Amino acid sequence: MSELRKDPVVGRWVIISTERARRPSDFPPAPVRPGQSACVFCPGHEDRTPPEILAGRGSGSPPNGPGWTFRVVPNKFPALRIEGELEPSGDGLYDRMHGIGAHEVIIESPEHAGSLATMSADAAADVLLAYRERILDLKKDGRFQYALIFKNHGEAAGASLEHPHSQLIATPIIPIMVTEELEGSAQYYRMKERCVWCDIVRQERRGRTRVILEQDGMVALAPFAPRFPFETWILPARHRAAFEESDLGEVRALAGMLQAFLGRMNAVLTDPPYNFMLHTAPLQDGALDHFHWHLEVIPKLTRVAGFEWGSGFFINSVPPEDAAAALRKARG
Amino acid sequence: MSELRKDPVVGRWVIISTERARRPSDFPPAPVRPGQSACVFCPGHEDRTPPEILAGRGSGSPPNGPGWTFRVVPNKFPALRIEGELEPSGDGLYDRMHGIGAHEVIIESPEHAGSLATMSADAAADVLLAYRERILDLKKDGRFQYALIFKNHGEAAGASLEHPHSQLIATPIIPIMVTEELEGSAQYYRMKERCVWCDIVRQERRGRTRVILEQDGMVALAPFAPRFPFETWILPARHRAAFEESDLGEVRALAGMLQAFLGRMNAVLTDPPYNFMLHTAPLQDGALDHFHWHLEVIPKLTRVAGFEWGSGFFINSVPPEDAAAALRKARG
Repeated sequence: MSELRKDPVVGRWVIISTERARRPSDFPPAPVRPGQSACVFCPGHEDRTPPEILAGRGSGSPPNGPGWTFRVVPNKFPALRIEGELEPSGDGLYDRMHGIGAHEVIIESPEHAGSLATMSADAAADVLLAYRERILDLKKDGRFQYALIFKNHGEAAGASLEHPHSQLIATPIIPIMVTEELEGSAQYYRMKERCVWCDIVRQERRGRTRVILEQDGMVALAPFAPRFPFETWILPARHRAAFEESDLGEVRALAGMLQAFLGRMNAVLTDPPYNFMLHTAPLQDGALDHFHWHLEVIPKLTRVAGFEWGSGFFINSVPPEDAAAALRKARG
Repeated sequence: MSELRKDPVVGRWVIISTERARRPSDFPPAPVRPGQSACVFCPGHEDRTPPEILAGRGSGSPPNGPGWTFRVVPNKFPALRIEGELEPSGDGLYDRMHGIGAHEVIIESPEHAGSLATMSADAAADVLLAYRERILDLKKDGRFQYALIFKNHGEAAGASLEHPHSQLIATPIIPIMVTEELEGSAQYYRMKERCVWCDIVRQERRGRTRVILEQDGMVALAPFAPRFPFETWILPARHRAAFEESDLGEVRALAGMLQAFLGRMNAVLTDPPYNFMLHTAPLQDGALDHFHWHLEVIPKLTRVAGFEWGSGFFINSVPPEDAAAALRKARG
């Protein structure tokens, strides 16, 4: 079973994944890029994934066969296991617990060469509604503190399969990056009694130099201090802490904004590999006045090197004002 | 001029580097891999770098010509500039300051195909003594709070030049990763009145499963909760906060350990790309009872993807006990 281990100095948790265990001779890993016929996510290969948890299907289409528009399945090689208890234990200085969690794959389209950027607006909204439904379901399991939705698109961004998909990992601990956002925004709220992201949206709307797009209550902006060239945040203009509390209209608005942004990003940067990560409120924390859900998109354009790994500083060679200007001008 | 900008939510600083500014059409960057004749770091090309700050030269060898064993030069495309004042300023929610700092390159050998792992013990010690000398010199400049020594070896680890070199960036702010180590270790010290790294060394020596090598007062170990496969920490067994306070014998011991470790790593992982980062005490903080310098080495074997960028969790598919066992058995 996988194990969660805590660094005794900085308190960072890592997942030691025995399900995916590798030996020294496995490095560097051979690129696994099956063509369409071998793709485990393509229609007709439903038996090559664990049974589906959720799918978009017409009436009369039985589960785990063709005829779907999207599917959610457990990851066949999960980083964390759904069964069992955490059983935290100590060993001198060290803390560990069983690697309990959920690891799901959202297969976004039956089309092997499809993409979130180019599918129909309805299909894109369905994928985001599936995110919402899975988070709402996992929230019922009291062992889980957080559900992170993320996407790796392209090999350089960490995707091991071409077929368009995103992932959900639910963890028994709130991830440190979310904790940092919760703490920073709580501190801001104590001083100002306002949500820091609401204030960011207000200031950016006045200045306009870092706003990329605004439509249907959603804002896409280049953050003031981006780690990466063309890093972009998409968030609702009105305060909302938990993504999964969004109504149908809001989810559709996010889908529309995401498609519009990805279209422009693909035009400006020629279909780059990218990651996105959805930061929503912790599962068990309810509505927070100081947290505001947001989607972070990072095109994978540069390599992270020793300075970044050693310092936590990032060197970004594209000022966000330049990135926003290029993306505003583009036609997706 | 470059600019330091602070994220208003989490307080992370980034460097917006206008010296290295790129336009959208510059992505993805073309690989720059000049052969030996074009290498700006090779002997005979001393005029292609800024004038040297320090070099290993026999008597009668004039600066900025051939005849050196190592050279330290300012980075021609610095992330931060040495001249000027910080002039912190605000803009609504946001904080920024001028990108002041030092960015130096340590050219480790005149041999284009040389490497820290295979050069003579004396030559390796001279490189590490150059690190010490540069830190001691930069410490005199009260604008600098920290000096980070790091190395990017191989293109996948972020190196843009093949010729063996490491780098030093001095910053006007203590990097967030060092701050986290300082805070975590100070908290531990308040509870236990002991240095957490001293305790780690003690516990690992008893358990032995994660110790890789021990020689001349230096310990190389696989940390309990490593972010990356084969991540390794090298540190002195006896407490010392500031690397630059090491005496000649200790610097030589580190050079010997680093060479022994790199030899084994190269044997087990077939000369992987790698980074190392030297975490020493802040420049202006003097001897600390709770901080203990250490060198972190991370072979670049895997890609960092959306889950890591979104959560700060790392999924590591090689338990450190397995990594340490493989490295112990290897012959460098």
